[in-house]
Amino acid sequence: MAETWANGLDLHLDLTATRVRAQLETALRDAIRSGRLTAGTRLPATRTLAADLGVARNTVAEVYGQLVAEGWLSARTGSGTLVASRVAPAPEPDPAAPGSARRHRHDLRPGEPDLSAFPRGPWLAAARKALDAAPDAVLGYGDPCGLPVLRGVLAEYLARARGVVARPGNIVICSGFAHGLEVLSRALLETGARTLAVERYGHQAHRDVVVRQGLRLHPLPVDASGAVASAAGDADAVLLTPAHQFPLGVTLAPHRRRAFVDRGGIVIEDDYDGEFRYDRQPVGAMQALAPDRVIYCGTASKSLAPGVRLAWLVIPPRLHDAAAAALGGGPSALDQLTLAELISSGGYDRQIRRARLAYRRRRDRLVAALAPLGLQVSGIAAGLHAFLDFPRTASELRAETLASRHGLAVEGLHRYTFGACDRAGLVIGYARPPEHAYTTALARLCAVLASSTGSVIATRSPCG
Amino acid sequence: MAETWANGLDLHLDLTATRVRAQLETALRDAIRSGRLTAGTRLPATRTLAADLGVARNTVAEVYGQLVAEGWLSARTGSGTLVASRVAPAPEPDPAAPGSARRHRHDLRPGEPDLSAFPRGPWLAAARKALDAAPDAVLGYGDPCGLPVLRGVLAEYLARARGVVARPGNIVICSGFAHGLEVLSRALLETGARTLAVERYGHQAHRDVVVRQGLRLHPLPVDASGAVASAAGDADAVLLTPAHQFPLGVTLAPHRRRAFVDRGGIVIEDDYDGEFRYDRQPVGAMQALAPDRVIYCGTASKSLAPGVRLAWLVIPPRLHDAAAAALGGGPSALDQLTLAELISSGGYDRQIRRARLAYRRRRDRLVAALAPLGLQVSGIAAGLHAFLDFPRTASELRAETLASRHGLAVEGLHRYTFGACDRAGLVIGYARPPEHAYTTALARLCAVLASSTGSVIATRSPCG
Repeated sequence: MAETWANGLDLHLDLTATRVRAQLETALRDAIRSGRLTAGTRLPATRTLAADLGVARNTVAEVYGQLVAEGWLSARTGSGTLVASRVAPAPEPDPAAPGSARRHRHDLRPGEPDLSAFPRGPWLAAARKALDAAPDAVLGYGDPCGLPVLRGVLAEYLARARGVVARPGNIVICSGFAHGLEVLSRALLETGARTLAVERYGHQAHRDVVVRQGLRLHPLPVDASGAVASAAGDADAVLLTPAHQFPLGVTLAPHRRRAFVDRGGIVIEDDYDGEFRYDRQPVGAMQALAPDRVIYCGTASKSLAPGVRLAWLVIPPRLHDAAAAALGGGPSALDQLTLAELISSGGYDRQIRRARLAYRRRRDRLVAALAPLGLQVSGIAAGLHAFLDFPRTASELRAETLASRHGLAVEGLHRYTFGACDRAGLVIGYARPPEHAYTTALARLCAVLASSTGSVIATRSPCG
Repeated sequence: MAETWANGLDLHLDLTATRVRAQLETALRDAIRSGRLTAGTRLPATRTLAADLGVARNTVAEVYGQLVAEGWLSARTGSGTLVASRVAPAPEPDPAAPGSARRHRHDLRPGEPDLSAFPRGPWLAAARKALDAAPDAVLGYGDPCGLPVLRGVLAEYLARARGVVARPGNIVICSGFAHGLEVLSRALLETGARTLAVERYGHQAHRDVVVRQGLRLHPLPVDASGAVASAAGDADAVLLTPAHQFPLGVTLAPHRRRAFVDRGGIVIEDDYDGEFRYDRQPVGAMQALAPDRVIYCGTASKSLAPGVRLAWLVIPPRLHDAAAAALGGGPSALDQLTLAELISSGGYDRQIRRARLAYRRRRDRLVAALAPLGLQVSGIAAGLHAFLDFPRTASELRAETLASRHGLAVEGLHRYTFGACDRAGLVIGYARPPEHAYTTALARLCAVLASSTGSVIATRSPCG
C-alpha cells in the first residue's frame, strides 16, 4: 500500500535534498485537501516511506510531526500515523460574498474611487520600509487612539493640506468614517447630546449608524449655499460635508460656515473628499474656524481605497476622553505605520495629485458629454461625483431602470434623501470606473439620459 | 535674495537631469519644514530660480505646482509664489503615547506574545504576493463580515487546527477580540439576552466592553475543573476560556464543557491561545460540541501580534445577522488578504509551531527555576502564561512592589478578579520578553519571590 500511495503523490519528481521536506509536506497537504488521502488512512511508517522516496527517515518524521501539529494527521501510539478526520468540509462559495451578487458591467454610482488606481507598488514599498524600521513595541496593543508616529505625520499633513488645526494628541485613528461616526455618536451621547442635525441629502448608512447609537436625527435643508444653519433648531450637534456636499456637491458658503460655528454646539465636519478640488485652491477645513467646537473627519477611503479602512478624527480636548473610551478595536498597526511612511515620503501627496488630475479630466469629459442634452450638471468644482438636475417631473426611477437595462448602474437622489424631498436628479460617481471603461460608461449614460429625459411624465414620484 | 536663497538650498550638488525635480521638491519641503523658509517668504520667479540652478524653467514651474498643491507654497496672481502660512506647529511628542509612560526594564505581565518574534519577512512577502494577485474589487467597501478569501481559508484552518465546525458564511472578521466581544454583546442584546456570565477571573477590559454595551454580568466561580456550570444560574449567555482559563490556566473539564452546552443558551468561547498546547495534542474547540449554540472566537493577537488587529468569530446562523448589523468598520482588506495568503501558504502554521517550541522551552525553564522556592506553578499545560499560587496570606501587592523596585513588571491575581476573591498569586506572562531578555527576567522573578514569600504576613488583602 505504501508503494502505490507513495507513487500517488508523484514524489519521484525533483527531490533535491534542500526542497524535499517542503515538497513532501505540500504533497501530503494537497493529497489530503483534495481527498486523495481520506480520513483514517494509515500512512506508511517513516522508515518505509523514507525508503520508498529515498530520503532520510528523519525528514519524513519531521514532515509527519509538522502535519500532526497542523491537524492534517494524527499520531496514535500503536496505530501509527493516520490522516486526521476533517471536521468541516472544504469551504463552499460564500453566499454572503458581494462577488456573487449580480454586477452591472458599468458602474457610475458614487462612493468609491477608481480602485484600479490604488498605488499597490508604493504601498508595499512603504510597508516594507516602515516595518523594517519599526520597533517591536508598535506591534503590541499600544494606544487605542492610534500610533503616535501616524498621528504626528497626520497633524502636519492636515495643517498644510487642509488647514486643520491639529496636534497629535487630538487625533484619533479609526477604521473608516463610519467607525469614526459611531465613536463620535457615543462620545456625544456620553457628554449629554441627544439630537444630531444632518443634511437632508446624505448617506442612509451614516444616519443608521447615528440612530443605532441612540441619537435623534434632525433634517437640515440644503440650498445653493449648502446646509441651512438657521434650520438646525436646538440640535446639540451638526453633521456637515462643507467642502463638497454629498451628494448635491455644493460648497458650504463662508457665511453659512460662520453661522454653524456661531450657533454653538458641536460640528462634525465630514471632509470625505476635501483633497479633490479642481477649479481653485482647496477650500480649507471649517475646523480651523473653531477647533474647540468642530470635529474634523478625514479618510483614506477616497484618496487611496476604502479597503485600507483608515480614517482620522481631530477632536476638541473636551470630547477626546469620551471618544477614546468609545473606541473599539483600532485599526492595524501595520497599516498605520505604512500610511505614516507613505505620507512623510511624499508618496501620498503624489497619489492624490495624480488622482486629482485624472478625475478632473473625467469631470470635464462628463460635462462636455452632457451639455448637448441640455442637462444641468452641478457640484463639479470638487470631489468624485457630480449631481445631474432633473426637471421635477422626470423620473429618476425610470432613468435607473433604463440604465440598468443597458448594464449601467446609476443612483437617483431619492436614495440619499432624508425627510422631505424637494429635488430630483442622478448622482454620478465619475471616479468609480477603471480608466479604460470610462468612455463606454459615459456613452451609455448619455444614451440612457437622451431617451429617459425625453419622457416628461414621471411614472411615480422619485420620493414615493 | 534669490541668490542667497538658492544657495541656502545647497542645490549645487549632483543636479542630474533625472533627479533634479525630486531633489528640488525635497529641498524646498525640508527648508520650509525646518523653518529656513518662513511663512510669507516670496520665492524667486521660476525663470530666476531656473537660471540660478541651471535647470529648465519648466522643471521649476512643476515643482512649484506640486508644492502649491501640497499646501507648502501658495500662488497668488500679482504677488508670485509665497511660502504658505502653516496652521499648526510641527508635531510635539504626544503625551498620550504609551512610549512616554514609565516602562519596566523587564516585563512578565500576561497578555502579549514575544513581539520580537513577529514574522516580519514572511508577513511582507505574503502581503506582496496577496496584493499582486488581488482583484481591484477587494479594495472597495465589500462585505462588512470580511473578505470571502480569508473566511474560506479560516474555515479550513479552524477545522483542521482547532476542530471548529465552520463555513465561510458563518465567519465574521473583526479588529481583535475586544471588537468581537463588543459586536457579540450588541448582537446578544438585540436578540433578547440581558445577562452574561463571566469567569470570576479574567480581563477587566473585557468586562467593561460587555457592560458598556448594556449587558449585566454574572460571576462564575472557577475551580480545578474550570468554570462552574451550575453557578451560571439563569444567565442568557456565558463567556468562557475553555482551552486555557485566563488567568488561572486550568483547562475546562469535559463534563463541564458538556454541562455548559446542555444548560442551553449561548456560549462565547474565547480561544485566545488555543494553538499553544504543550503537553498533548491541542484540546479541540468546545464549539464543535454545539455549533448552533457556541460562538467560537479566535485571534491573531497571540499567534502573530496584537498590532495586526485581526480576530475571527464563528457565529451560529441565528445570531449571524444581528452580529453583522452590529459591525462597525471592519479590518483592513490588505491585512485580510495577507493573513489569508500566510495561512494558505503554510507560513502561519510554521510561525505557530516555531513559537510553540520557543514558549514551551520558556515554560520549562520557569518551572525549573521556581521549583526550589517550593512555589506551585499551575496552568502550564498550555498558553503564554502560568499561575503562581501564593499561600493565602502572602501578599501579591508586596511582590508587585518588590518586583517593580527590581525593574520587573508582574501582576497579581487581584487585577483580574471580578466578585469575591478566593485565590492569591501572580500571573506570569513568560512569552512577553524578547528571547535574549528572558534569562534575566526569570532571575529577577526568582530573587523577588525568594524574599517576598518569606514574609508570611500580608500588608493587606490582595482583594482589598
